[in-house]
Amino acid sequence: MDISKYIAKIPNFPKKGIVFLDITPLLQDKDAYDEATNLLVDYVKEKKANVIVSPEARGFMVGCPVATKAKLGFVPVRKPSKLPRETISEEYDLEYGSNTLSMHKDAIKKGDKVVIVDDLLATGGTVLACAKLVERLGGEVVGCAFYIELTDLPGRKLLEKYEIMSLLKCKEEL
Amino acid sequence: MDISKYIAKIPNFPKKGIVFLDITPLLQDKDAYDEATNLLVDYVKEKKANVIVSPEARGFMVGCPVATKAKLGFVPVRKPSKLPRETISEEYDLEYGSNTLSMHKDAIKKGDKVVIVDDLLATGGTVLACAKLVERLGGEVVGCAFYIELTDLPGRKLLEKYEIMSLLKCKEEL
Repeated sequence: MDISKYIAKIPNFPKKGIVFLDITPLLQDKDAYDEATNLLVDYVKEKKANVIVSPEARGFMVGCPVATKAKLGFVPVRKPSKLPRETISEEYDLEYGSNTLSMHKDAIKKGDKVVIVDDLLATGGTVLACAKLVERLGGEVVGCAFYIELTDLPGRKLLEKYEIMSLLKCKEEL
Repeated sequence: MDISKYIAKIPNFPKKGIVFLDITPLLQDKDAYDEATNLLVDYVKEKKANVIVSPEARGFMVGCPVATKAKLGFVPVRKPSKLPRETISEEYDLEYGSNTLSMHKDAIKKGDKVVIVDDLLATGGTVLACAKLVERLGGEVVGCAFYIELTDLPGRKLLEKYEIMSLLKCKEEL
Protein backbone atom coordinates (compact mmCIF):
# COMPACT_ATOMS: atom_id res chain seq x y z
CA MET A 1 0.00 0.00 0.00
CA ASP A 2 1.36 3.45 -0.95
CA ILE A 3 -0.08 5.75 1.71
CA SER A 4 1.83 8.83 0.49
CA LYS A 5 -1.06 10.05 -1.66
CA TYR A 6 -3.26 10.21 1.45
CA ILE A 7 -0.79 12.32 3.44
CA ALA A 8 -1.08 16.11 3.06
CA LYS A 9 2.17 18.06 3.30
CA ILE A 10 1.68 21.42 5.01
CA PRO A 11 4.68 23.76 4.87
CA ASN A 12 5.37 25.99 7.88
CA PHE A 13 2.89 24.31 10.25
CA PRO A 14 2.77 24.53 13.24
CA LYS A 15 5.72 26.89 12.79
CA LYS A 16 8.03 28.23 10.09
CA GLY A 17 10.48 25.70 8.66
CA ILE A 18 8.47 22.62 9.64
CA VAL A 19 6.63 20.55 7.03
CA PHE A 20 3.67 19.03 8.84
CA LEU A 21 2.56 15.61 7.56
CA ASP A 22 -1.20 15.46 7.98
CA ILE A 23 -2.85 12.05 8.15
CA THR A 24 -6.46 13.31 8.09
CA PRO A 25 -6.94 12.66 4.32
CA LEU A 26 -6.08 9.01 5.03
CA LEU A 27 -8.57 8.82 7.91
CA GLN A 28 -11.28 10.36 5.71
CA ASP A 29 -10.83 7.64 3.09
CA LYS A 30 -12.56 4.49 4.35
CA ASP A 31 -10.52 2.11 2.21
CA ALA A 32 -7.16 3.70 2.97
CA TYR A 33 -7.85 3.91 6.73
CA ASP A 34 -8.98 0.30 6.77
CA GLU A 35 -5.99 -0.94 4.80
CA ALA A 36 -3.44 1.01 6.83
CA THR A 37 -5.03 -0.33 10.02
CA ASN A 38 -4.90 -3.90 8.73
CA LEU A 39 -1.18 -3.62 7.93
CA LEU A 40 -0.50 -2.55 11.51
CA VAL A 41 -2.77 -5.32 12.78
CA ASP A 42 -0.68 -7.89 10.88
CA TYR A 43 2.46 -6.48 12.52
CA VAL A 44 1.16 -6.55 16.10
CA LYS A 45 -0.09 -10.11 15.62
CA GLU A 46 3.29 -11.20 14.28
CA LYS A 47 4.91 -9.61 17.36
CA LYS A 48 2.43 -11.47 19.60
CA ALA A 49 1.57 -8.23 21.39
CA ASN A 50 -1.28 -8.23 23.89
CA VAL A 51 -1.44 -4.47 24.52
CA ILE A 52 -1.31 -1.40 22.27
CA VAL A 53 0.03 1.85 23.73
CA SER A 54 -0.39 5.21 21.95
CA PRO A 55 0.35 8.81 22.92
CA GLU A 56 -2.37 11.46 22.62
CA ALA A 57 -3.99 12.62 20.49
CA ARG A 58 -3.14 11.60 16.90
CA GLY A 59 -1.74 8.33 18.22
CA PHE A 60 -5.23 7.39 19.38
CA MET A 61 -6.54 7.64 15.81
CA VAL A 62 -3.90 5.17 14.65
CA GLY A 63 -3.58 2.86 17.65
CA CYS A 64 -7.17 2.37 18.85
CA PRO A 65 -8.41 0.76 15.61
CA VAL A 66 -5.39 -1.55 15.67
CA ALA A 67 -6.23 -2.60 19.25
CA THR A 68 -9.87 -3.41 18.52
CA LYS A 69 -9.23 -5.08 15.15
CA ALA A 70 -6.53 -7.28 16.70
CA LYS A 71 -8.69 -7.67 19.82
CA LEU A 72 -6.07 -6.32 22.22
CA GLY A 73 -6.20 -3.97 25.19
CA PHE A 74 -5.44 -0.29 24.66
CA VAL A 75 -3.52 2.05 26.96
CA PRO A 76 -3.41 5.82 26.36
CA VAL A 77 -0.34 7.89 27.22
CA ARG A 78 -1.42 11.42 28.05
CA LYS A 79 -0.45 14.72 29.59
CA PRO A 80 -0.47 14.27 33.39
CA SER A 81 -3.61 16.34 34.03
CA LYS A 82 -5.71 14.15 31.72
CA LEU A 83 -5.49 10.82 33.54
CA PRO A 84 -7.64 10.67 36.68
CA ARG A 85 -6.16 7.68 38.51
CA GLU A 86 -2.70 6.99 39.94
CA THR A 87 -0.04 7.54 37.27
CA ILE A 88 3.67 7.34 36.57
CA SER A 89 5.36 10.00 34.41
CA GLU A 90 8.35 10.55 32.15
CA GLU A 91 9.78 13.92 31.21
CA TYR A 92 11.68 14.39 27.97
CA ASP A 93 13.35 17.27 26.15
CA LEU A 94 11.84 19.13 23.24
CA GLU A 95 13.67 21.51 20.95
CA TYR A 96 12.62 24.28 23.33
CA GLY A 97 11.67 23.22 26.84
CA SER A 98 10.38 19.82 27.89
CA ASN A 99 7.25 17.70 27.96
CA THR A 100 5.81 15.23 30.46
CA LEU A 101 3.76 12.15 29.59
CA SER A 102 1.90 9.88 31.98
CA MET A 103 0.34 6.43 32.11
CA HIS A 104 -2.03 4.89 34.64
CA LYS A 105 -0.10 2.73 37.10
CA ASP A 106 -2.42 -0.24 36.57
CA ALA A 107 -2.32 0.02 32.78
CA ILE A 108 0.48 -2.46 32.17
CA LYS A 109 0.97 -5.80 33.93
CA LYS A 110 4.30 -7.59 34.37
CA GLY A 111 5.00 -9.60 31.23
CA ASP A 112 2.66 -7.66 28.94
CA LYS A 113 3.93 -7.54 25.37
CA VAL A 114 3.41 -4.05 24.02
CA VAL A 115 3.51 -2.45 20.59
CA ILE A 116 3.69 1.34 20.70
CA VAL A 117 1.67 2.88 17.85
CA ASP A 118 1.76 6.49 16.65
CA ASP A 119 1.17 8.39 13.43
CA LEU A 120 4.71 9.67 12.92
CA LEU A 121 8.25 8.81 13.99
CA ALA A 122 10.29 12.03 14.00
CA THR A 123 12.79 12.67 16.82
CA GLY A 124 11.52 9.66 18.77
CA GLY A 125 11.25 11.48 22.12
CA THR A 126 7.57 10.76 22.63
CA VAL A 127 7.93 7.09 21.76
CA LEU A 128 10.96 6.64 24.01
CA ALA A 129 8.97 8.15 26.90
CA CYS A 130 6.14 5.69 26.17
CA ALA A 131 8.61 2.79 26.13
CA LYS A 132 10.10 3.81 29.48
CA LEU A 133 6.64 4.01 31.04
CA VAL A 134 5.83 0.50 29.78
CA GLU A 135 9.10 -0.92 31.08
CA ARG A 136 8.84 0.72 34.50
CA LEU A 137 5.55 -1.16 34.94
CA GLY A 138 7.13 -4.49 33.94
CA GLY A 139 5.98 -4.66 30.33
CA GLU A 140 8.10 -5.54 27.31
CA VAL A 141 8.12 -3.34 24.20
CA VAL A 142 8.05 -5.88 21.37
CA GLY A 143 7.75 -3.29 18.60
CA CYS A 144 6.89 0.24 17.50
CA ALA A 145 4.62 0.90 14.50
CA PHE A 146 3.97 4.11 12.57
CA TYR A 147 2.17 5.34 9.51
CA ILE A 148 5.17 7.55 8.63
CA GLU A 149 8.86 7.56 9.50
CA LEU A 150 11.02 10.63 8.84
CA THR A 151 14.36 9.14 7.89
CA ASP A 152 16.35 12.37 8.16
CA LEU A 153 15.50 12.77 11.84
CA PRO A 154 17.11 10.75 14.63
CA GLY A 155 14.05 8.77 15.73
CA ARG A 156 15.31 5.34 14.70
CA LYS A 157 18.68 5.97 16.35
CA LEU A 158 17.10 7.08 19.64
CA LEU A 159 14.94 3.94 19.60
CA GLU A 160 17.74 1.62 18.47
CA LYS A 161 16.99 -1.01 21.12
CA TYR A 162 13.46 -1.42 19.75
CA GLU A 163 12.10 -2.90 16.56
CA ILE A 164 10.42 -0.37 14.27
CA MET A 165 8.02 -0.70 11.35
CA SER A 166 6.48 2.07 9.29
CA LEU A 167 4.17 2.17 6.28
CA LEU A 168 5.93 5.15 4.67
CA LYS A 169 9.55 6.28 4.94
CA CYS A 170 10.29 9.81 3.76
CA LYS A 171 12.32 12.92 4.38
CA GLU A 172 10.95 15.93 6.19
CA GLU A 173 11.15 18.15 3.10
CA LEU A 174 8.98 15.70 1.10
CA MET B 1 -23.47 -5.65 27.79
CA ASP B 2 -23.16 -3.96 31.19
CA ILE B 3 -20.21 -1.62 30.76
CA SER B 4 -20.60 -0.04 34.22
CA LYS B 5 -18.05 -2.37 35.82
CA TYR B 6 -15.41 -1.13 33.38
CA ILE B 7 -15.99 2.56 34.17
CA ALA B 8 -13.99 4.03 37.07
CA LYS B 9 -15.72 6.75 39.07
CA ILE B 10 -13.26 9.39 40.24
CA PRO B 11 -14.69 11.92 42.71
CA ASN B 12 -13.47 15.54 42.51
CA PHE B 13 -11.65 15.21 39.16
CA PRO B 14 -10.73 17.38 37.33
CA LYS B 15 -12.18 19.68 40.00
CA LYS B 16 -14.11 19.54 43.29
CA GLY B 17 -17.72 18.46 42.97
CA ILE B 18 -17.32 16.63 39.66
CA VAL B 19 -17.39 12.84 39.46
CA PHE B 20 -15.22 11.93 36.48
CA LEU B 21 -16.25 8.79 34.61
CA ASP B 22 -13.07 7.17 33.35
CA ILE B 23 -13.30 4.78 30.41
CA THR B 24 -9.67 3.62 30.53
CA PRO B 25 -10.45 0.36 32.40
CA LEU B 26 -12.79 -0.53 29.54
CA LEU B 27 -10.11 0.23 26.92
CA GLN B 28 -7.59 -1.90 28.83
CA ASP B 29 -9.92 -4.92 28.69
CA LYS B 30 -9.71 -6.43 25.20
CA ASP B 31 -13.08 -8.14 25.38
CA ALA B 32 -14.95 -5.17 26.82
CA TYR B 33 -13.40 -2.71 24.33
CA ASP B 34 -14.21 -5.03 21.45
CA GLU B 35 -17.78 -5.61 22.56
CA ALA B 36 -18.49 -1.93 23.23
CA THR B 37 -17.07 -1.10 19.79
CA ASN B 38 -19.22 -3.73 18.11
CA LEU B 39 -22.40 -2.35 19.70
CA LEU B 40 -21.62 1.08 18.27
CA VAL B 41 -20.76 -0.49 14.91
CA ASP B 42 -24.22 -2.11 14.82
CA TYR B 43 -25.77 1.28 15.48
CA VAL B 44 -23.89 3.18 12.78
CA LYS B 45 -24.68 0.45 10.26
CA GLU B 46 -28.38 0.61 11.16
CA LYS B 47 -28.23 4.39 10.63
CA LYS B 48 -26.53 3.86 7.25
CA ALA B 49 -23.80 6.34 8.20
CA ASN B 50 -20.82 6.75 5.89
CA VAL B 51 -18.72 8.99 8.14
CA ILE B 52 -17.86 8.97 11.86
CA VAL B 53 -17.06 12.30 13.54
CA SER B 54 -15.49 12.48 17.02
CA PRO B 55 -14.13 15.34 19.14
CA GLU B 56 -10.61 15.10 20.58
CA ALA B 57 -9.19 13.34 22.44
CA ARG B 58 -11.24 10.71 24.26
CA GLY B 59 -13.71 10.71 21.40
CA PHE B 60 -10.95 9.37 19.13
CA MET B 61 -10.56 6.30 21.36
CA VAL B 62 -14.26 5.52 20.97
CA GLY B 63 -14.96 6.67 17.41
CA CYS B 64 -11.89 5.54 15.43
CA PRO B 65 -12.39 1.82 16.11
CA VAL B 66 -16.04 2.18 15.13
CA ALA B 67 -15.01 3.81 11.83
CA THR B 68 -12.51 1.12 10.88
CA LYS B 69 -14.65 -1.84 12.04
CA ALA B 70 -17.64 -0.50 10.08
CA LYS B 71 -15.27 0.50 7.24
CA LEU B 72 -16.25 4.18 7.25
CA GLY B 73 -14.31 7.41 6.95
CA PHE B 74 -13.29 9.23 10.13
CA VAL B 75 -13.22 12.98 10.74
CA PRO B 76 -11.62 14.48 13.85
CA VAL B 77 -12.99 17.63 15.50
CA ARG B 78 -10.16 19.45 17.23
CA LYS B 79 -9.01 22.68 18.80
CA PRO B 80 -8.33 25.17 15.98
CA SER B 81 -4.53 25.11 16.32
CA LYS B 82 -4.37 21.35 15.79
CA LEU B 83 -5.75 21.12 12.24
CA PRO B 84 -3.29 22.23 9.57
CA ARG B 85 -5.55 22.78 6.56
CA GLU B 86 -8.47 25.16 5.95
CA THR B 87 -11.06 24.81 8.73
CA ILE B 88 -14.45 26.02 9.90
CA SER B 89 -15.07 26.61 13.61
CA GLU B 90 -17.84 26.71 16.19
CA GLU B 91 -17.63 28.42 19.56
CA TYR B 92 -19.75 27.25 22.48
CA ASP B 93 -20.17 28.19 26.12
CA LEU B 94 -18.68 26.29 29.00
CA GLU B 95 -19.61 26.74 32.66
CA TYR B 96 -16.81 29.30 32.82
CA GLY B 97 -15.69 30.83 29.53
CA SER B 98 -16.03 29.25 26.11
CA ASN B 99 -14.42 26.72 23.82
CA THR B 100 -13.83 26.59 20.06
CA LEU B 101 -13.81 23.45 17.95
CA SER B 102 -12.79 23.11 14.31
CA MET B 103 -13.13 20.74 11.40
CA HIS B 104 -11.30 20.63 8.07
CA LYS B 105 -13.41 22.24 5.38
CA ASP B 106 -13.03 19.26 3.03
CA ALA B 107 -13.86 16.72 5.74
CA ILE B 108 -17.57 16.42 5.01
CA LYS B 109 -19.19 16.25 1.59
CA LYS B 110 -22.76 17.29 0.80
CA GLY B 111 -25.07 14.39 1.56
CA ASP B 112 -22.69 12.57 3.92
CA LYS B 113 -24.53 10.69 6.64
CA VAL B 114 -22.71 11.21 9.91
CA VAL B 115 -22.82 9.59 13.33
CA ILE B 116 -21.09 11.65 16.03
CA VAL B 117 -19.31 9.38 18.52
CA ASP B 118 -17.91 10.37 21.92
CA ASP B 119 -17.24 8.71 25.26
CA LEU B 120 -19.72 10.71 27.34
CA LEU B 121 -22.84 12.78 26.85
CA ALA B 122 -22.99 15.39 29.63
CA THR B 123 -24.14 18.94 28.82
CA GLY B 124 -24.07 18.22 25.08
CA GLY B 125 -22.18 21.39 24.13
CA THR B 126 -19.32 19.61 22.42
CA VAL B 127 -21.61 17.34 20.43
CA LEU B 128 -23.86 20.21 19.35
CA ALA B 129 -20.78 22.06 18.06
CA CYS B 130 -19.76 18.93 16.12
CA ALA B 131 -23.27 18.67 14.65
CA LYS B 132 -23.24 22.31 13.53
CA LEU B 133 -19.87 21.83 11.82
CA VAL B 134 -21.19 18.79 9.95
CA GLU B 135 -24.34 20.61 8.85
CA ARG B 136 -22.51 23.76 7.72
CA LEU B 137 -20.56 21.52 5.32
CA GLY B 138 -23.75 19.92 3.96
CA GLY B 139 -23.70 16.69 5.94
CA GLU B 140 -26.60 15.10 7.78
CA VAL B 141 -26.27 13.99 11.41
CA VAL B 142 -28.12 10.66 11.42
CA GLY B 143 -27.26 9.81 15.02
CA CYS B 144 -25.06 10.35 18.08
CA ALA B 145 -23.53 7.43 19.99
CA PHE B 146 -21.88 7.34 23.41
CA TYR B 147 -20.48 4.86 25.88
CA ILE B 148 -22.13 6.81 28.73
CA GLU B 149 -25.03 9.22 29.03
CA LEU B 150 -25.49 11.33 32.17
CA THR B 151 -29.24 11.53 32.50
CA ASP B 152 -29.30 14.30 35.12
CA LEU B 153 -27.52 16.74 32.79
CA PRO B 154 -29.22 18.53 29.88
CA GLY B 155 -27.34 16.82 27.02
CA ARG B 156 -30.31 14.99 25.55
CA LYS B 157 -32.45 18.14 25.71
CA LEU B 158 -29.81 20.27 23.97
CA LEU B 159 -29.53 17.62 21.25
CA GLU B 160 -33.30 17.04 20.97
CA LYS B 161 -33.32 17.26 17.17
CA TYR B 162 -30.88 14.36 16.95
CA GLU B 163 -31.19 10.68 17.67
CA ILE B 164 -29.08 9.46 20.58
CA MET B 165 -27.93 6.04 21.70
CA SER B 166 -25.75 5.19 24.68
CA LEU B 167 -24.46 1.95 26.18
CA LEU B 168 -24.86 3.14 29.78
CA LYS B 169 -27.29 5.66 31.27
CA CYS B 170 -26.47 6.93 34.73
CA LYS B 171 -26.52 9.92 37.05
CA GLU B 172 -23.48 12.03 37.69
CA GLU B 173 -23.30 10.98 41.35
CA LEU B 174 -23.19 7.29 40.38
